Amino acid sequence: MKIGVFDSGLGGLLIARSIIRELPEYDCLYLGDTARVPYGTRSKETIYKFTHEAVDYLFRHDCELIIVACNTASADALRRIQQEYLPAHYPDRRVLGVLIPAAEAAVDLVSKKGIKDPVFGVLATQATIHSGAFLREITKLKPDAKIVQQAAPLLVPLIEMGGMKYARPIVDEYVQPLRDTGVTTLILGCTHYPVLRSMIAEALPGVDIVDQNDVVPGKLRNYLERHPEIDAPIARRGRHVFQVTDYTHNSEEFARMLFPEGIELESIPGLG
Amino acid sequence: MKIGVFDSGLGGLLIARSIIRELPEYDCLYLGDTARVPYGTRSKETIYKFTHEAVDYLFRHDCELIIVACNTASADALRRIQQEYLPAHYPDRRVLGVLIPAAEAAVDLVSKKGIKDPVFGVLATQATIHSGAFLREITKLKPDAKIVQQAAPLLVPLIEMGGMKYARPIVDEYVQPLRDTGVTTLILGCTHYPVLRSMIAEALPGVDIVDQNDVVPGKLRNYLERHPEIDAPIARRGRHVFQVTDYTHNSEEFARMLFPEGIELESIPGLG
Repeated sequence: MKIGVFDSGLGGLLIARSIIRELPEYDCLYLGDTARVPYGTRSKETIYKFTHEAVDYLFRHDCELIIVACNTASADALRRIQQEYLPAHYPDRRVLGVLIPAAEAAVDLVSKKGIKDPVFGVLATQATIHSGAFLREITKLKPDAKIVQQAAPLLVPLIEMGGMKYARPIVDEYVQPLRDTGVTTLILGCTHYPVLRSMIAEALPGVDIVDQNDVVPGKLRNYLERHPEIDAPIARRGRHVFQVTDYTHNSEEFARMLFPEGIELESIPGLG
Repeated sequence: MKIGVFDSGLGGLLIARSIIRELPEYDCLYLGDTARVPYGTRSKETIYKFTHEAVDYLFRHDCELIIVACNTASADALRRIQQEYLPAHYPDRRVLGVLIPAAEAAVDLVSKKGIKDPVFGVLATQATIHSGAFLREITKLKPDAKIVQQAAPLLVPLIEMGGMKYARPIVDEYVQPLRDTGVTTLILGCTHYPVLRSMIAEALPGVDIVDQNDVVPGKLRNYLERHPEIDAPIARRGRHVFQVTDYTHNSEEFARMLFPEGIELESIPGLG
């Protein structure tokens, strides 16, 4: 079986790497829509259109299960893809997001640590925050949950363009409202943010941080175990292919920062 | 006659406004490809494809002359559009960029002020710098010109996402190499940068700044006077339409910052 991993850009390489480490026997096809990144500042309609095109591409390239690693796409497009596109076109295949695993992990962590009066924080793109998807998923699991959301629109460009040395005052401003409301448990709700994890942790001492890279691969293994009908790795050691819709020197450098062990990016024509 | 003004996003609204002030009798159709902005970090091939689609859209909507207000698109796509696409599809129409007017204005300024040993500086996106287009155009006019180029990849996201209060140390770092080489005349080679003009000027005291918004409308008027065959305004007071490929709360806010007198953005389907 081939697992597709889709992200708007290259941040999802972190999740792809974690999945490959957890499930090395599966084929994996990564797709980063680098010609149109970022998604997090775009409208819901545009995010749906782009995500739909990406999912379609991965299915046409024989992925049986797709992880939408992009939080923005998970928040704004996933339910509609699962409810409309999938039943009509690929009723036997699956598309999973990264929001529910993170929400589950945050709620589990609070209960495991016995935190009284937990306050969940969500740091994400503008589109993800605006969608209210994290609110919905956390509240489903814990109806009385207290949740504070914060959009952090400058972090993706800072991370992608080597501006991390300027990030501290910006991170400080973004986390201030979270600190003020006594957040106990913070979800990093964008694939890029784990790159700044230690800076965010320093700005929020004592706060538990939920990183999707730690959570998603284990949840995916569980999912495959519960669904043996789709669990059929075709090789001992999977084949791992990483494709981007636009290949630049920048994307090469960013990929090398995330995959210091080396990675080969293949360029494909745009999806639109 | 209808003038098309194309930009990858909304920065080109500044040039559109200057053109409308200079030539209020012409119809004007602005197109911002906000669904795929920014272009400045993408590859030459992708920038050509996107610019080609935009120019095609504006011609199909009856523009007889197009200003490519985006420096990145002017640098990476304009010559090919003028040499290949135009003769084949619209031999009677024109597509002009914003690089040559800026290069001419910079060289004129140096000669008018009698600056001995001028050093031209160019601040622009990575793609524009990498293309070498400003080097080529300045050198055509002044073969012995000393030119220093500097990519400023973080400025566009800072400007678009309300991060200008964090811009000073970043601007300081970008202009340092220009200062070190004794730049006398700086071209703001991206439609967004005039928003930070005073900050850039403070970081480079005594340096003349060439702002395309001041230059392009006059050059366009001259061009129309030299080409009476295309100069036929159809109304006393032109009709001005502003279209974007993605409409968000953000784009509305950014447009209002640039057009405090009010502007109505129309959403159109994507170009891809």
